[in-house]
Amino acid sequence: MASFVQLLRNEIRHKPLLWLLVFVPAVFVAAKFRHEAHTLLFVLSVLAIVPLAALLSHATESVAAKTGDAVGGLLNATLGNLTELVIALTALRAGEYMLVKASLAGAIVTNTLFMLGTCFLLGGLKYHVQEYNRAGARLQAGLLFLATVALLVPSAVAQADSAASARFTQELSVGLSVVLIAAYGLGMLFSLKTHRELFAGAEHGEDGEVPWPMGLALATLAGVTVLVALVSEIFVESVQKAAETFGMTPAFVGFIVVALVGGAAEMASAFSGARKNRLDLSVGIALGSASQIALFVAPVLVLLSYVIGPSPMDLQFWPGAVVMMLVAALTASLVTNSGRSAWFVGVLVLTVYLIFAMTLYLLPPRG
Amino acid sequence: MASFVQLLRNEIRHKPLLWLLVFVPAVFVAAKFRHEAHTLLFVLSVLAIVPLAALLSHATESVAAKTGDAVGGLLNATLGNLTELVIALTALRAGEYMLVKASLAGAIVTNTLFMLGTCFLLGGLKYHVQEYNRAGARLQAGLLFLATVALLVPSAVAQADSAASARFTQELSVGLSVVLIAAYGLGMLFSLKTHRELFAGAEHGEDGEVPWPMGLALATLAGVTVLVALVSEIFVESVQKAAETFGMTPAFVGFIVVALVGGAAEMASAFSGARKNRLDLSVGIALGSASQIALFVAPVLVLLSYVIGPSPMDLQFWPGAVVMMLVAALTASLVTNSGRSAWFVGVLVLTVYLIFAMTLYLLPPRG
Amino acid sequence: MASFVQLLRNEIRHKPLLWLLVFVPAVFVAAKFRHEAHTLLFVLSVLAIVPLAALLSHATESVAAKTGDAVGGLLNATLGNLTELVIALTALRAGEYMLVKASLAGAIVTNTLFMLGTCFLLGGLKYHVQEYNRAGARLQAGLLFLATVALLVPSAVAQADSAASARFTQELSVGLSVVLIAAYGLGMLFSLKTHRELFAGAEHGEDGEVPWPMGLALATLAGVTVLVALVSEIFVESVQKAAETFGMTPAFVGFIVVALVGGAAEMASAFSGARKNRLDLSVGIALGSASQIALFVAPVLVLLSYVIGPSPMDLQFWPGAVVMMLVAALTASLVTNSGRSAWFVGVLVLTVYLIFAMTLYLLPPRG
Repeated sequence: MASFVQLLRNEIRHKPLLWLLVFVPAVFVAAKFRHEAHTLLFVLSVLAIVPLAALLSHATESVAAKTGDAVGGLLNATLGNLTELVIALTALRAGEYMLVKASLAGAIVTNTLFMLGTCFLLGGLKYHVQEYNRAGARLQAGLLFLATVALLVPSAVAQADSAASARFTQELSVGLSVVLIAAYGLGMLFSLKTHRELFAGAEHGEDGEVPWPMGLALATLAGVTVLVALVSEIFVESVQKAAETFGMTPAFVGFIVVALVGGAAEMASAFSGARKNRLDLSVGIALGSASQIALFVAPVLVLLSYVIGPSPMDLQFWPGAVVMMLVAALTASLVTNSGRSAWFVGVLVLTVYLIFAMTLYLLPPRG
Repeated sequence: MASFVQLLRNEIRHKPLLWLLVFVPAVFVAAKFRHEAHTLLFVLSVLAIVPLAALLSHATESVAAKTGDAVGGLLNATLGNLTELVIALTALRAGEYMLVKASLAGAIVTNTLFMLGTCFLLGGLKYHVQEYNRAGARLQAGLLFLATVALLVPSAVAQADSAASARFTQELSVGLSVVLIAAYGLGMLFSLKTHRELFAGAEHGEDGEVPWPMGLALATLAGVTVLVALVSEIFVESVQKAAETFGMTPAFVGFIVVALVGGAAEMASAFSGARKNRLDLSVGIALGSASQIALFVAPVLVLLSYVIGPSPMDLQFWPGAVVMMLVAALTASLVTNSGRSAWFVGVLVLTVYLIFAMTLYLLPPRG
Repeated sequence: MASFVQLLRNEIRHKPLLWLLVFVPAVFVAAKFRHEAHTLLFVLSVLAIVPLAALLSHATESVAAKTGDAVGGLLNATLGNLTELVIALTALRAGEYMLVKASLAGAIVTNTLFMLGTCFLLGGLKYHVQEYNRAGARLQAGLLFLATVALLVPSAVAQADSAASARFTQELSVGLSVVLIAAYGLGMLFSLKTHRELFAGAEHGEDGEVPWPMGLALATLAGVTVLVALVSEIFVESVQKAAETFGMTPAFVGFIVVALVGGAAEMASAFSGARKNRLDLSVGIALGSASQIALFVAPVLVLLSYVIGPSPMDLQFWPGAVVMMLVAALTASLVTNSGRSAWFVGVLVLTVYLIFAMTLYLLPPRG
C-alpha cells in the first residue's frame, strides 16, 4: 500500500491529469449527500472517470509488458477499452439500451473521426508532411468496415422488410456477435502472430514510461475497475437529467459526451504520439480502439445481455447511427489509404465529426 | 461417338468431379418415376449440374483456344456463365421472376465474396503473401461498381418517389440493360484489344489441360447445353419445395444454393489457381464472372423476357439484395486495391459473405 | 470602349464560341416582343449564356493573373462558378427552390461525371495512357466527399426520424453552410499557401491566352455579370415551360440542362486541356468546380436566402439527388485514385452519368 502511494505520487508528477483523482472521493461523497444534484454528480463523475481511465490504461500496458508479446497483445486487445466496457455494462444492467447503443456507436465514430482527425491536425501543425506504416491502418479499417457491414444488415433488412420479426433481429444479433468476435480473434492472430512483421512500425511503444511491477499492476487493474464501475453508476444515473439541464439531446449525450469521457485516456496517448511524429502509434490507437469496440465490446455486450440484462439486447441501431458509422469507416479507409498526412487531412476528418455532432445537438428529442 | 467416350474416359481420370456425370441419367429416371419426390430430385439435379457445368466450361475454353485470342476472349466472355444463363432462362420461362432475380443477385454476391474470399484464403494458407496484377481486378471491380449503380437506381428512385409508376421501372430497365451490355462490350474491346498489354498477367491459362478438337468441343457445347437446360427444369421445379423441407427460406435458396450450384465449375478453376500461386487467374475468374453476370447475363434476361417470358422482367431488386451487391462491389474494390493478399484478407471477405448468408437463412419468409 | 470592341474582335477570332454573343441582344429583343414564346426564349437564352460564361471566365482569369498567386487563386476560387451562382440567385429570388436545388445537385454531378468522364475519354482517344498529379484530385475528391456527407445528413436524419421538425432542418442547414464555407476556406489556405508545392502540376495554366489589362478585365467582369443576370431571368422563366414542350421532366431540366448550360465555359477549357495531355488541368477544373459548388455556392445561397429569398432555403435534397451526388463523389474518388487514365475510364464515368440522365429523363413528374 505504501509503495502504491509512492508510485502514484511519482505518476502524478509525470501526468498532471492524475490530479483529477481527487474527484473520485468527491463524487462518492456528493452522491451520498446530494443525491438529487444531477448536474453536479454528472460533472464530478466525468472528472473522476478520466484519471481512472488513464490509470487503467497504464496498468493494462504494464501487465502486457511483463507477459511477453503474444499474451500482452491479447491483454491490450481485450482490456484496452475496459472503461467503455464497464460504463456500457452499468447502463446495460440499468436496462438503458438506448444509452448503451448510442455510446457504442458514438465511441466508434468518435475514435474514428475525432481521435484520428485530431492526431492528423496536431501532427500536421508541427510537421509539414507525416508518413506512417499503412499496414496497421489497413487492417483496422478493414475490420471496421466489416463491423459496420454487420451492424448495417439488421437495420437495413428490418427496414426493407417489415415482416422481419423481433425474433429474427434477436437471432441475427447473436449470430453476428459470434461472427464478429471470431473475426476479431483471427485479426489478432494475424497481426500478433502469423504476419506480425507487416505491422512492425505500429507497435504500442511504452513512450519511455516505466511499467509497474506485476503485482501492483494487477492490483491496480482490479481496484480501479471496481472504482470505474462505481463511478459509472453515478454517471449513468445522472447523465440524462444533467443533459436536459445543459439543453443537450439524449442522442448527443450518448454519442458525443459519453464517448469523449470513455476515451479520454486513449486520446491523451494518441495525441502525444502525433506530436512526437509517431503517427503509426496514433493511427493504431484510434482505429484499433474503434474496431475493438465494434468487433469485441459490442458483441460481448449482446451476449452478456442474456445473462445480466433485464432482457436481451440486439444489434439493431437507429438508422442515423448506422449511416454515421458507415461514413466514419469509409472516411478512415479513404484517408489512411495513402499513408501520408498533412494538417488539412485532420481538418477534413474533424469536419465530418463536427457535422455529425451538430446534427445530434440540434436533433429534436423523440417522443 | 467412340472418340467422345474415349476422351470422356480420359477427362474423368484427370477430373474426379466428372464421376458425378452418373447423376445425369439418374435425375431423368427419377423425374419420370418419382415425380413428387422434390427433395430427391433437388439433390440429384444439383449433383448432375455440377459436372455438366465443368464440361461446358472446358468445351468453351477449347473452342476459345482454337479460334485465336480475340474471338476466343469473346466466346469466353459470353459463354463463361452459360450454366447460370440456362438456369435463369428456365426459371424465366416458368415465370419465377423472384427466383431469377435472387439467383442473379446471389451469383454476383457469391462470385465476388465467396469465390474471391476462398481464393485468398486457400492461397494465403499456402503462401505467406501473394502479389498479383491489379489491372484486371481494377477493370472488373470498376465494371461491377457500374453495374451495382445501375441496379441501385431503379430501387432507390422507386422507393424515394412513390409516384414512379411500373411503366417507368419497365422503361428504365430496358434502357439500363442496353447501357450495361454496351459498357460490357466496350470493356472487352479495352481489355482484349486496345490495352491488352495491361492485363498480361491475368490471361486465362489452360492449366496444362489439353484442349479438345474443334468439332468435339462444339458438339459437347451444344449437347451439354441441352442437358443443362433439361436438368435445370427439374432443378427449378424442385428447389422451392425441397428448400422448405430443409427449413431454408426462398431467399436463401435463390441467393446461396442456386448461386453455388451454378458457379461450381468456375470455383474449381479459381481455387486451383489460388493454390498454384496464380492469383491473377483466380481474381480474374471471380470478379470477371461476377461482372459478366451483372453486365451481360442480367440485361440479356431482361431483354429476352419480352420474347420468351410470360411478362416483361425489370431490374428492380429487393432493397436488401441491392445493399448486398453494393457492399460486395465495395469490398472487392477495397480488397483488390493493393494487389497483395494474405490469409486474413480471405477471412475478411468470407466473413462478409457469412454475414449475408446468415441473414438470409434467418430471414422469415414474406407473406 | 473602342479598345474593348477591338479586343473582342481579337478574342472572337481565337474563340469561335464568342460568335454566339449575337444571341445576347437577340434574346432581349425576343423577350420584349415575343413574351409568350417560351421555347424560343429558352433556346435563345441558352445560346446567349454560353459565350457570356466564356467571357466571364476569361475576365476572372485575367484579374487573377494580374493580382498575384494568392489573391488570384482566391478570385478564381470564388468567382470561378459565377455563372452558376448568378443563375441560381435569379431562381432563388423567384422562389424556385426546387430548381435551385436541382441545378446545384446537377452541377455537382455533371461536373464530376460528365466533365471528368469526357476529359478522360477525349484524352484517352488521343493518348494511350495518361498520367497526372494525384494530389489535386485527392484534395478535391476529399472536399467533395465531405460536402456530400454534409448534404446527406439532413435528408438521412429527416427520413429516419419523422419527429425531426422543419425548424431542425433549417437550423442544421445554416450550421452546415457555415461549416462547409469554413472547410472550403481552409482547403484554399492549404492548396494555395501552406502546401502549394504538392499541387504544382495542377496549376491553372493560361493556355497561351493573353490576359486582358486590369481595367478592362474588371469592367468586363462587372458588365458581363449584369448581362448574365438579365439573361438568366429570361432563362429561369422560360425553362420549365420549354421543357414541357420538349417532353422533358422538371428534374431532367434542372439536373442536366441547366448544369450543362452553366458549366459550358469551364467544359471548353477542361476538354482542351485533356486533348493537350494536360490532365492535371482538366481534373483540377472538373473536380474543383464541383467542390466549389458544393462547398461555396450552395452554402452561400442558403445564407443569402435569408436576405433575398421569399423564405429561407435549406439543404434538404430529394433523396434521389443525394444518392446521385454520393455515387458521383465515390466514382471520382475511385477513378482518380491511381493517377492514371485510359479511354475506358472515361467510358465508365460517362456511363454512370448516362444512367442518371436516363433515370431523370424517364422519371414521371410528381404531383
